[in-house]
Amino acid sequence: MAYIILSNPGSESRKYALYKDSEQILSLHLEKNKGSYISTVEKGTKVYEENVTEEQFRKCAEYLIKTIKKECEFDPTMLAAIGVRIVAPGHFFATHRKIDETFMTNLNEKLAISPLHIEASLGEIKMFKETLPDVPIYALSDSAFHRERPLVSRLYAIPRQMRENLEAERFGYHGLSAEYIVSELDRLCRKLPSKLIICHIGGGISVMSFKDGKTVDTSMGFSPLEGVMMATRSGDIDPILVSTLIEKTDSPISLVETLLNRGCGLLGLSGISEDPRDLLKAEKEGNKNAKSALELYVYRIKKMIGSMATTLDGIDALVFTGTVGERSANLRNRICLNMNSFGIRLDDAKNSTRTSGSGEIGDEGSEVQIFAMKTNEMKVMAQELLNLL
Amino acid sequence: MAYIILSNPGSESRKYALYKDSEQILSLHLEKNKGSYISTVEKGTKVYEENVTEEQFRKCAEYLIKTIKKECEFDPTMLAAIGVRIVAPGHFFATHRKIDETFMTNLNEKLAISPLHIEASLGEIKMFKETLPDVPIYALSDSAFHRERPLVSRLYAIPRQMRENLEAERFGYHGLSAEYIVSELDRLCRKLPSKLIICHIGGGISVMSFKDGKTVDTSMGFSPLEGVMMATRSGDIDPILVSTLIEKTDSPISLVETLLNRGCGLLGLSGISEDPRDLLKAEKEGNKNAKSALELYVYRIKKMIGSMATTLDGIDALVFTGTVGERSANLRNRICLNMNSFGIRLDDAKNSTRTSGSGEIGDEGSEVQIFAMKTNEMKVMAQELLNLL
Repeated sequence: MAYIILSNPGSESRKYALYKDSEQILSLHLEKNKGSYISTVEKGTKVYEENVTEEQFRKCAEYLIKTIKKECEFDPTMLAAIGVRIVAPGHFFATHRKIDETFMTNLNEKLAISPLHIEASLGEIKMFKETLPDVPIYALSDSAFHRERPLVSRLYAIPRQMRENLEAERFGYHGLSAEYIVSELDRLCRKLPSKLIICHIGGGISVMSFKDGKTVDTSMGFSPLEGVMMATRSGDIDPILVSTLIEKTDSPISLVETLLNRGCGLLGLSGISEDPRDLLKAEKEGNKNAKSALELYVYRIKKMIGSMATTLDGIDALVFTGTVGERSANLRNRICLNMNSFGIRLDDAKNSTRTSGSGEIGDEGSEVQIFAMKTNEMKVMAQELLNLL
Repeated sequence: MAYIILSNPGSESRKYALYKDSEQILSLHLEKNKGSYISTVEKGTKVYEENVTEEQFRKCAEYLIKTIKKECEFDPTMLAAIGVRIVAPGHFFATHRKIDETFMTNLNEKLAISPLHIEASLGEIKMFKETLPDVPIYALSDSAFHRERPLVSRLYAIPRQMRENLEAERFGYHGLSAEYIVSELDRLCRKLPSKLIICHIGGGISVMSFKDGKTVDTSMGFSPLEGVMMATRSGDIDPILVSTLIEKTDSPISLVETLLNRGCGLLGLSGISEDPRDLLKAEKEGNKNAKSALELYVYRIKKMIGSMATTLDGIDALVFTGTVGERSANLRNRICLNMNSFGIRLDDAKNSTRTSGSGEIGDEGSEVQIFAMKTNEMKVMAQELLNLL
């Protein structure tokens, strides 16, 4: 029997879970909402929200332990391990592994290359080391599930030297979510669909293709910035525009990277919000910038689905997951519109009533099985961590 | 009656033609080949090659006029106009127009933003101004044909301010080639295919979609660097890798841009050659780098075709053009392989015997009509220039 804590730090929120072996005991979700900090605690069927201070949000390991103690009469010395989701480019980070000195050295080196995607992981590890110095911490890689895929989908068209110097390869992310969806789909369907495309649509977005449950290609590459347009990320952009931006703005390179990661996407294009719900509302009220942002958002996801379809020569099943993919019937509908030639046809009733959880939403005549699904990265993290222990 | 000279400067070669109204009288093709310069002159059915000096290659307007005089007993004062193909980002350059002071000011301004793509055009204009100071020069835009397309395919997911400051929009190129193919296809088929994808595959590559002959989307964007992997261009790459490269190499930004434009693609990845013919030969001899480079080259064109298929909801016709698209049966075969779900099926015999000129190469059972076609940008340039005069 092992108790473990899992940590899934996001750019805007932090999620934690306490597991007893493969069973979830408690979960905690902290997020900033209109200037104040809110914590959602879930224990079995009991769910409640409470406000937390900025201090509690920053040092949330302490708040987490306090909450666990309060809810579970639990002694932290009983913890076998902590598992932290890691989003970092590099072969070293494409494997689940124990966090030791070598790990920290490597992560700090990467911090210089790609600070935005590593800060969250690094901060989380440091916090747990301070709060629970005796509990071993493990890195659960968000790229590991994509590691074994064909070389052609991992390469850039750049010289070998550059590839080696910068480890400039397409690692891909959202692997923990994909791993969950693949295993869950195997359970849902009589037979796992052979040619599968998963659209994980949250703040970050990955469109990924799988043959018989194994990754073939992913839209994210070296970093989680590549691919489609996201909540605040530009996704792909003419490389000349990146260098031009650096040259013209005369600002530090890190500022341009921050702009591309945090000031673009839905937020940058609309000038209103990064949240599709806000934009759908604004669009309804006649706001043209919201409309334009949503149009490009949908358009680029559609194009990426078409692109991924060539890596499988067709699609047997299409899954929407991630917060937006699971919940937004409107956006799923727009993405699936005029995709008849791909064999994609939604059932309007099934789609519009499916606003949470997992279920099929395709028309009976649709050649492609279509699902909206709730992902559960924590569950996969628990399994992977238990395998390591 | 009007005599006109047309100029189509490429990165590695220069093409010229003398037209009498819409009829070609003479053409001239200059290229560097293994250290020496070769000129191919074509007048009606007469074709010959001759070596030229580096001086003649640099000041090739003089050499052109000399050749015209020799072959046609032609007086340059009879010239009504010169038309130069222009590849430059910006709304101003997305229209065919007379080259005047305003044009030169605007072009010089763009030179600072995107030197690599403008140097060739600028050099060509300057050369003609010196050699034929009394003949008016017109800019024939390679983006004009794509200008009226839907906004959604012209936008990046960036803030409005950045879009306006840098004119950061997706202009697209190879419009002159596309215009020719669309009109030629209209002649070849009883009815112009409604949902058309054109793969212009030369040193640069564009995969473009057209609805009823009008551009819907193109793989090139702000500059001709965006999109698929090309002969020496990287195509799309994680934006973070561009900034990382600038930061890590500590070299001027222009050097990084040069690397991405001239040192990547087939050349950079293979380390052997930018010419697919060389790589096909090396691959046959067991060279793994050549094989890997060709695989990625094909893979990314396939993905782009899938992506473009979503912009039309299907494909009625697929055209391969550009030097490689017209001539390489091997690469066309590899691009069309495992694209059955898109309705794409080649006729092996028709494809393998079609190594130049225009003709259908699809299987009789192929849902998508497939063509290999010889493009003729000069012919479109002549028409567009005559319209302007």
